[in-house]
Amino acid sequence: MEKKLKQDSTHDHNETFCNIEGVNEVLMANLNKDDDRPVISLGLGDPSVFQCFRTTALADDAIVDAVRSAKFNGYAPILGIPPARRAIAEFLSRDLNSSQFSADDVYVTVGCTQAIEIITSVLAPPGANILLPRPGYPIYESRAAFSKLEVRHFDLIPEKGWEIDLDAVESLADENTAAIVIINPCNTCGNVFTYQQLKKVAETARKLGIFVIADEVFGHLVYGNTPFVPMGQFGSIVPVVTWRSLSKRWILPGWRLGWIATTDPHGILQKSGIVDDINNYLNISTFPASFIEGAIPQILETLKEDFYSSILNTIKEAADIFYSKIKDIPCIACPQKPEGSMSVMIKLNLSLLEGIRDDMDFSLKLAKEESVIVLPDYDKLIGSSWAVINRFLQKSNLHVVHDNGGVAVGLKNWVCINIAVEPTCLGEGLDRIKAFCHRHAKKQ
Amino acid sequence: MEKKLKQDSTHDHNETFCNIEGVNEVLMANLNKDDDRPVISLGLGDPSVFQCFRTTALADDAIVDAVRSAKFNGYAPILGIPPARRAIAEFLSRDLNSSQFSADDVYVTVGCTQAIEIITSVLAPPGANILLPRPGYPIYESRAAFSKLEVRHFDLIPEKGWEIDLDAVESLADENTAAIVIINPCNTCGNVFTYQQLKKVAETARKLGIFVIADEVFGHLVYGNTPFVPMGQFGSIVPVVTWRSLSKRWILPGWRLGWIATTDPHGILQKSGIVDDINNYLNISTFPASFIEGAIPQILETLKEDFYSSILNTIKEAADIFYSKIKDIPCIACPQKPEGSMSVMIKLNLSLLEGIRDDMDFSLKLAKEESVIVLPDYDKLIGSSWAVINRFLQKSNLHVVHDNGGVAVGLKNWVCINIAVEPTCLGEGLDRIKAFCHRHAKKQ
Repeated sequence: MEKKLKQDSTHDHNETFCNIEGVNEVLMANLNKDDDRPVISLGLGDPSVFQCFRTTALADDAIVDAVRSAKFNGYAPILGIPPARRAIAEFLSRDLNSSQFSADDVYVTVGCTQAIEIITSVLAPPGANILLPRPGYPIYESRAAFSKLEVRHFDLIPEKGWEIDLDAVESLADENTAAIVIINPCNTCGNVFTYQQLKKVAETARKLGIFVIADEVFGHLVYGNTPFVPMGQFGSIVPVVTWRSLSKRWILPGWRLGWIATTDPHGILQKSGIVDDINNYLNISTFPASFIEGAIPQILETLKEDFYSSILNTIKEAADIFYSKIKDIPCIACPQKPEGSMSVMIKLNLSLLEGIRDDMDFSLKLAKEESVIVLPDYDKLIGSSWAVINRFLQKSNLHVVHDNGGVAVGLKNWVCINIAVEPTCLGEGLDRIKAFCHRHAKKQ
Repeated sequence: MEKKLKQDSTHDHNETFCNIEGVNEVLMANLNKDDDRPVISLGLGDPSVFQCFRTTALADDAIVDAVRSAKFNGYAPILGIPPARRAIAEFLSRDLNSSQFSADDVYVTVGCTQAIEIITSVLAPPGANILLPRPGYPIYESRAAFSKLEVRHFDLIPEKGWEIDLDAVESLADENTAAIVIINPCNTCGNVFTYQQLKKVAETARKLGIFVIADEVFGHLVYGNTPFVPMGQFGSIVPVVTWRSLSKRWILPGWRLGWIATTDPHGILQKSGIVDDINNYLNISTFPASFIEGAIPQILETLKEDFYSSILNTIKEAADIFYSKIKDIPCIACPQKPEGSMSVMIKLNLSLLEGIRDDMDFSLKLAKEESVIVLPDYDKLIGSSWAVINRFLQKSNLHVVHDNGGVAVGLKNWVCINIAVEPTCLGEGLDRIKAFCHRHAKKQ
């Protein structure tokens, strides 16, 4: 019986990660166990572990009420329970000036990971491609690879405050391009796109005949000078498929509750069959726990501005600490003070450091010597992601189209830092990074 | 801009369902709104709506405690939180005589729908096939189609109490067969496989060099003469991948919490790379709400035998009512009294009925005239499923291998009835079916 099942026993176990969690584990394994100081993780973005980011008990109350009601033990409709869809539509409509969402525009998902799974699955005819930002969020690349959806990367330009390289977008797109993904606020770089930039994206997409996927998982989490503008505002220019979730603004990543909302006043997504395809895919997919869906109306109704602003103030404080401390470290550059989301990219100047090969080496040594975890650049993660997904798909002989392995020209040796960390802890982490850089500084 | 997005505007909207929920909707739409009697649904299997199947408040308590603890707001590890994996492993180990589960053998999933998604995704090299029972559960066919995994159906034989046609299994399998799926207790037919039958399945699978997927979503829900035997008991003969969930035994389908457990004392699944592939797939997938995972140890610890036996007694009572009433309807045959799960198949003798074309026609007219919903035969559903999935995949030119459209020879005009319904309601439903059959009986 082992004949067939053993055929793949040469399996390579060295490559153990294909996503951020995996890299995090590798770094954690490199910690020095003799270091008595607490480990400071500036890698994975999960602020829910900190008391200062503790969500309000009102959200818990909504879950408790929904569970105790016993109304939500059964299967939910595949698109989401109607009161949840209605409540989300109303909540989203408050953001928009002109157009309004209806419950029919909303699909409840098991977090935004499922939203990404859905869209990469429905957009995957042969030869089709999708335009993704670089830096971005590696699960897009992984899921696209899995669905044989070709990925074409456009850059966010650090020198211009991470503005979208729209010239690149135009030159990358062809008749097989289905959509462009915009992550705003930008989860990796900490920037927020302006109204004008987003409008240009919409106009460019319209010109190219593609639609816009707006990843607004960090929607409203802005604390600088640029206000948050929902991409759906430009729905009359181009169809927009937006997703958000409870993960970030509500600091509830573990609740796995997200939603897809379409802004499509001209019904183009409907006519093109994309709406039907989303429906069909949901028909063969799992859904969030019914009682969490059942709690949504109460959560969106009872949580008020004081909750949202208290979370924002805490992140703003963290951003201030981060920026004042990072400016003090000579071998690190940060092109822009973060204005949104919970992360920021910093650039290592390796010419000022002794014996640090690259950002991965920096991260591994920092973990070992200072018990601080930071994420080596996302593009490397995307590279890892491709490698593992490719191996996974090798057996199936599927042809996975991808670009140059993920290492972006001009984005070498960047490190991503999560600032949504308890402020004292963040300060201490940055002090340790400073000490590390000082110790490894090249002698003049 | 509409150029590309509109190209699919000829989209056919007539085919609106691809799963049980979809068929249910079609039947519900056929109800007569002037009928004042309450609708009795013997179609979809969601007993959670009935007071007599209400789960214990102890399960709710576990959720409330987990949410209030604020320990589970963050991301869960991709394979499941360790205490949940340990608790499930211990719980499953109680079933087995010899081998024991460890936490490492357990993967927590978003219900068993995700388990099916995972396994059909990891088993899908080109030309690979999987052996599925007929009648079965259509989501297997849908997910296999989506993953380009060829499906080969073996029959369950009604005349032999829905025994597995193992001769057919042997003749269907070839060197590209990866696994055989056994659903026990059988969710459609209401039968329970004996120890000897399952042992033969294990031996046949070993001979064929394939592994066994044991869908035990209805595990332990047996109330006849045949005890429930977990397939994992035969893990030393052949590797077994089992899934179960809170959906049925705990009457919590909406909680979306399931698990995959491997029984593989010889480490064959590990060596063959299947365990790694499951890990990799989970890396790019969503996961259950952390606090539901967090509640698992308390649920499995505090719920005692009295809860499980009270649920069983209620189903047993329903099975007794069902069988005594159905025997009284001349144009309907039921080959065996249900012994497990929550559903049963009945055969329509159309030669005794006037103007009823087939099982779909029977179900539609029954909905209209008697406000009773029953499910037309699953194989039709599989046919619909193929049709919609094929359309969904057409755009991608993917070659979907499947058999004769799903309508099984020898299984025409069967209807599936869900008996996990409040007993009075079930009795009334069956009385209405009897009245319907009487009214439509052919004049002698």
